[in-house]
Amino acid sequence: MNKLEDIVSLCKRRGFIFPGSEIYGGFAGTWDYGPLGVTLKKKIMDAWWKFFVEDRDDMYGIDAAILMNPKTWVASGHTATFADPLVECKECKSRFRADKIANNINESVTTEEFLATHTKCPVCGKENWGPIRKFNMMFSTHVGAVLPDDDQELAAKNIAYLRPETAQGIFTNYKNVVDTFYPNLPFGLAQQGKAFRNEISPRDFILRDRECSQMEIEYFVHPNAWEENFEKMRKAQHEFLEEIVKLPKEKIHEFEVPAEDRAHYSKRTIDFMFDYPNGEEELMGLAYRTDFDLQNIARESGKSMEYRDKITGETLIPHVIEPSIGVERLFLAILATAYTEDEINNEKRIVLKLPENLAPYKFCVSPLLKNKPELVTKAKEVYDILRQKYSSITWDDSGNIGKRYRKQDEIGTPKCIVIDFDTLEDNTVTVRDRDTTKQTRIKIDNL
Amino acid sequence: MNKLEDIVSLCKRRGFIFPGSEIYGGFAGTWDYGPLGVTLKKKIMDAWWKFFVEDRDDMYGIDAAILMNPKTWVASGHTATFADPLVECKECKSRFRADKIANNINESVTTEEFLATHTKCPVCGKENWGPIRKFNMMFSTHVGAVLPDDDQELAAKNIAYLRPETAQGIFTNYKNVVDTFYPNLPFGLAQQGKAFRNEISPRDFILRDRECSQMEIEYFVHPNAWEENFEKMRKAQHEFLEEIVKLPKEKIHEFEVPAEDRAHYSKRTIDFMFDYPNGEEELMGLAYRTDFDLQNIARESGKSMEYRDKITGETLIPHVIEPSIGVERLFLAILATAYTEDEINNEKRIVLKLPENLAPYKFCVSPLLKNKPELVTKAKEVYDILRQKYSSITWDDSGNIGKRYRKQDEIGTPKCIVIDFDTLEDNTVTVRDRDTTKQTRIKIDNL
Repeated sequence: MNKLEDIVSLCKRRGFIFPGSEIYGGFAGTWDYGPLGVTLKKKIMDAWWKFFVEDRDDMYGIDAAILMNPKTWVASGHTATFADPLVECKECKSRFRADKIANNINESVTTEEFLATHTKCPVCGKENWGPIRKFNMMFSTHVGAVLPDDDQELAAKNIAYLRPETAQGIFTNYKNVVDTFYPNLPFGLAQQGKAFRNEISPRDFILRDRECSQMEIEYFVHPNAWEENFEKMRKAQHEFLEEIVKLPKEKIHEFEVPAEDRAHYSKRTIDFMFDYPNGEEELMGLAYRTDFDLQNIARESGKSMEYRDKITGETLIPHVIEPSIGVERLFLAILATAYTEDEINNEKRIVLKLPENLAPYKFCVSPLLKNKPELVTKAKEVYDILRQKYSSITWDDSGNIGKRYRKQDEIGTPKCIVIDFDTLEDNTVTVRDRDTTKQTRIKIDNL
Repeated sequence: MNKLEDIVSLCKRRGFIFPGSEIYGGFAGTWDYGPLGVTLKKKIMDAWWKFFVEDRDDMYGIDAAILMNPKTWVASGHTATFADPLVECKECKSRFRADKIANNINESVTTEEFLATHTKCPVCGKENWGPIRKFNMMFSTHVGAVLPDDDQELAAKNIAYLRPETAQGIFTNYKNVVDTFYPNLPFGLAQQGKAFRNEISPRDFILRDRECSQMEIEYFVHPNAWEENFEKMRKAQHEFLEEIVKLPKEKIHEFEVPAEDRAHYSKRTIDFMFDYPNGEEELMGLAYRTDFDLQNIARESGKSMEYRDKITGETLIPHVIEPSIGVERLFLAILATAYTEDEINNEKRIVLKLPENLAPYKFCVSPLLKNKPELVTKAKEVYDILRQKYSSITWDDSGNIGKRYRKQDEIGTPKCIVIDFDTLEDNTVTVRDRDTTKQTRIKIDNL
């Protein structure tokens, strides 16, 4: 059983996630969030923002533009090195990421190493390859009035990129925040926003898409205090993942990235891996980036990135701890954790055991029978009362009550409130629990 | 006095909005939101989402990808007609939007009409113009593995655009939502998200930027019921603008767009104009779009956009009422309304009279003197108590109390809570009101 396929199917069937531009035959690597997906995604992002920004005194929010001055990507190294090894089949002209179609090679594979793997073309089956070429994964565009027949020089002068990560939108605003808020070290800048990567072959549902949402913090610390702050940030990540969005502890594995695999500037990196349906995959990363980014910006901009301590008067370039998580990766981890198949009275049931704080709807209100006006009227009354108190609430009078339960189970609604003939007598309702399917009778006033 | 410049200056000084990529000399038409700007923007967007989506039973959220199948823009007409009249000065090679540098001409100006205006080049002052050319305002990029030396044919095959509006991300998901949720007419799909326009000359702060956030609803109605639904939607817009984000009624003017100025498919359009500091400008639009978009999609995709009424069995293509608002335009309208200069004790004061539900911080907690540890400790205690109840709260112990008041006034904090020596005696604090500057003493327990 391929559980990822089951989740993809549920997402489409119930309106969480649709393939992007599906009406026109799709558009590879893009996904559209439907009504329930928008709600779940928003709750996840709001929970992160509350936990890491609103509820802390040392965090400052940022929302930088997606289109940035191209110097940003020269400074960060993306223009030179943000590239995948591209290989073309000379027979059928198909193009692939070399490290994805051959075994045991990595992103820095050479043409010779690739040819030695004797990989066959996944499309035509032949083995006739061109050389490995570096393909930059940044989407490029032109900003300002560049016409199709303009010369290459003008076009090159106006090139810009869709940001491949949100982090640089934070680093480029470091000085703005220091100059307006004078924060004490350590302090963090946090951002949520879209980033774009021109993946040669997007795959694995929302895990490797061309357009993703990131939630990143750059946490600025005194260089001497990086280890203790790294440790605090590591704990905060676990707390968020396990206490706030309720991922099971046993499915999260820390992978201490060895020195030879780390970026050259990083002194320590932990990949937080998660047991996804199709295997262990990266959920998020925590990296100690030293002063690499601020030094790059200082060099490229010619401006000082120095920070002056208000109390000691010490002048220094802060070092950075970066926790970085993809919303889609977290979304899928939450869905995969919630997705459950069980049996109720010998019938197979699909149920999404989402934590209550993330479920798109907290309650569903329903009349037992939809063709009894007195039940519908009473149910509407109850619905209106609850509607004033809660916004995460839905109404359902479609099909029969069994079908409604099945639907609410599939979309993860923790409680169904059903109005029946007894309600008209004694003002009690049936409250049915999603996980146990147990029903209890409760006074309307006590809901 | 140019009030817009004062607002821009306040935004930068206090960390609401910084010029995009400022550290690298900027990047025209982009703006970065700083800590207070992010908070205000988020509160505005959340207020809209709650009012139009969460608190209604007839609305469904959507969050579509920014990169869409290019057929989308063929169907919508953007590929053919989303263009500005571009004119080049043959002397200095500068390029301009013809309708912006000449008087009394519009977007459909011809070369002859433009030359007849005898406009001088705003850069070099000469009058030697090339022909008017249509410049498409969509940002284009290539999706998939297209290399710089690839032929034009391959490049053209892989072209994609950054969406120039969010609306089409809704229309392309209309069928997905109908097929999964079976909503009754009328129902709406709502979306918040980024849209991109390659303005030849971005200007007017955040009013005409290259990257903006839109909040749009496509409200699907029975063709016979468009007038009553248009009227309901018109009222709902006023309610949102006047009751929720508290724009002054007298600054909002409805402009009934005359038939000859409307898009050919629209039977009625109202532009909601707002008295901005630099004059009346469009704040939002409300348009009756008939079945224009769904018919376009049906034609381009070959798929039926028909809706079948569950009760009557009638089959029809719904018509659409579209309220559309730019977050930045609303953000600036709110800031401009709040921005006030007055005099307190013969001293000029700048105060941002933001409504309480939108102010980045609801309270600021402060010790009267920062060098008295007993005051600081007590103030921290009060801060911690309030912190548990509210997230929109800040701490300030910088400078002297007068400076702090001035700062909190400028960022729009409605109340400052000050802990002084009396607090240590009787557990009361001073609560100072932003708008009146009046101070009252209140028991800590009653805060």
